[in-house]
Amino acid sequence: MSDNETFYIPTFEDALAAKERIAPYVHRTPVMTSSFLNELTGAELFFKCENFQKAGAFKVRGASNAVFGLSDEMAAKGVATHSSGNHALSLSYAAGRRGIPVTVVMPRTAPQAKKDAVKGYGGVIVECEPSTSSREETFAKVVAESGAEFVHPYNDPRVIAGQATCSMELNEQVENLDAVVAPIGGGGMISGTCLALSNIAPEVKIYAAEPLNADDAARSFKAGHIIADDAPDTIADGLKVPLKDLTWHFVSNHVTDILTATEEEIVDAMKLIWKRMKIVMEPSSAVPLATILKNRELFKGKRIGIIITGGNVDLDRLPWLND
Amino acid sequence: MSDNETFYIPTFEDALAAKERIAPYVHRTPVMTSSFLNELTGAELFFKCENFQKAGAFKVRGASNAVFGLSDEMAAKGVATHSSGNHALSLSYAAGRRGIPVTVVMPRTAPQAKKDAVKGYGGVIVECEPSTSSREETFAKVVAESGAEFVHPYNDPRVIAGQATCSMELNEQVENLDAVVAPIGGGGMISGTCLALSNIAPEVKIYAAEPLNADDAARSFKAGHIIADDAPDTIADGLKVPLKDLTWHFVSNHVTDILTATEEEIVDAMKLIWKRMKIVMEPSSAVPLATILKNRELFKGKRIGIIITGGNVDLDRLPWLND
Repeated sequence: MSDNETFYIPTFEDALAAKERIAPYVHRTPVMTSSFLNELTGAELFFKCENFQKAGAFKVRGASNAVFGLSDEMAAKGVATHSSGNHALSLSYAAGRRGIPVTVVMPRTAPQAKKDAVKGYGGVIVECEPSTSSREETFAKVVAESGAEFVHPYNDPRVIAGQATCSMELNEQVENLDAVVAPIGGGGMISGTCLALSNIAPEVKIYAAEPLNADDAARSFKAGHIIADDAPDTIADGLKVPLKDLTWHFVSNHVTDILTATEEEIVDAMKLIWKRMKIVMEPSSAVPLATILKNRELFKGKRIGIIITGGNVDLDRLPWLND
Repeated sequence: MSDNETFYIPTFEDALAAKERIAPYVHRTPVMTSSFLNELTGAELFFKCENFQKAGAFKVRGASNAVFGLSDEMAAKGVATHSSGNHALSLSYAAGRRGIPVTVVMPRTAPQAKKDAVKGYGGVIVECEPSTSSREETFAKVVAESGAEFVHPYNDPRVIAGQATCSMELNEQVENLDAVVAPIGGGGMISGTCLALSNIAPEVKIYAAEPLNADDAARSFKAGHIIADDAPDTIADGLKVPLKDLTWHFVSNHVTDILTATEEEIVDAMKLIWKRMKIVMEPSSAVPLATILKNRELFKGKRIGIIITGGNVDLDRLPWLND
């Protein structure tokens, strides 16, 4: 979808339909609290644990909504994407549940662990060279040959409507939230959060949390238009991608602010959550707590929802052990 | 309590009283499942997550029952113990909640992290030399001077009655269990499990899971009397201690079998749980899954409760990274 195309903005009705559609395939994940972290931050924190989600991440919500919303005719041709992260796992999981083919285009240089994980969920991998041109060429060929439906990791109304179900659940699980803080990369989770809360709880403020090393969304937010960086480098590897037109629509209209944290702050927050909450979660998921810890006055005394977006981390390469 | 002393065996009424007494101070921990691990084992597994418990381990149940069962007069003199592990943290937490002094005798050579953790929960540390004689001498002095009540980590009827509340909850949370598998060290958790289930669900089999490197309980079980090893070496550091008279009573009367696993099997099971269930738990807590994976026929098609006993692990020293 290019900036010049007319695009369809998902509505709250789409989110309600997604909630019903994906219910058999995703978990209603639990909300956890930590008296230690409440004391440390001076706020009341409610962690929505999408690390416990199917395929280990919230992305299975959007992927399932896209896959199960296809007509039988379209579904028979399968789905395809070119993510190498949680979206690829999630799309493979959802396609597997529907029993349709799924193709994932990945650079041949991608870590074997990521390839194995996608295969483990039933995805077929087509390798490309590690360049944008090779990826686009390879992906176009896959789609042309199979007729597979492209499901973008975030800039897709079906995906955003699916992600909206996460904050819809959170709002049912926790009363009287003052704010929700979620990580921002391409903006799929934040857009879903905006879509949900602007309809069911418009008084709840929405903060996006971003690595300072990949702060294109924060700079876009200030500038008033999308700024895309070329190749940001951050430990929060789910958050390197830029905003696109659909997600920019939600971010620019509904987000209160975008807060940033350094790499060190992100790793410290991640380790703190592992140590105190006893959960395994990704660096990306630690960015919200990192921003709360450095903006205590902003959140003091408030009831804050935090989206723990996923738990797919390489246990052999933990960031606090790579010093 | 020596073998020659008459000892008091806690009753189910004690366990019921414990459940009411400790309710304000402990979590009713969640039960988690994993479709991946169900498929892998061919059984239906229900993980009782005491890693999410206050102070990070089930031991807070027994410690809280002991602390809150004291008369005001006794409580005023405080409590004391000489564990350096989860019992010390748990006793410190419980004493802190009651607002009474707690003294922990620890070898001066104990890791600083363990000392800091006990201090973090409000415990006062008295250091001894790293020998049994110094520990006993120092501990006797502490008790003589303060009049503090000694709370043994496991061979104490108050502690066993407290641990029983874990399986009482599990039995409320999961219907029709065929068996429960829990780690065994000194036998506190297993004894509590026996106390609970022999009264409320006597048809449920109870298996103890033990590191092969510290298999004194398995050998005791076969021999029909307590065999205590001198200094077993295992990654499952909560399970090095021997059975004592009270826990032997429960083990010898109610346990179906004691299964063992090698160090490698324990570490593999631990990493598998972290990777697939996204929870942080201790090596000791992985022994049950390790024994189930090597005794698949025994558990196939059955509904199995597994006690994840705790989550206090040194994140800087993970066992699969120490090769």
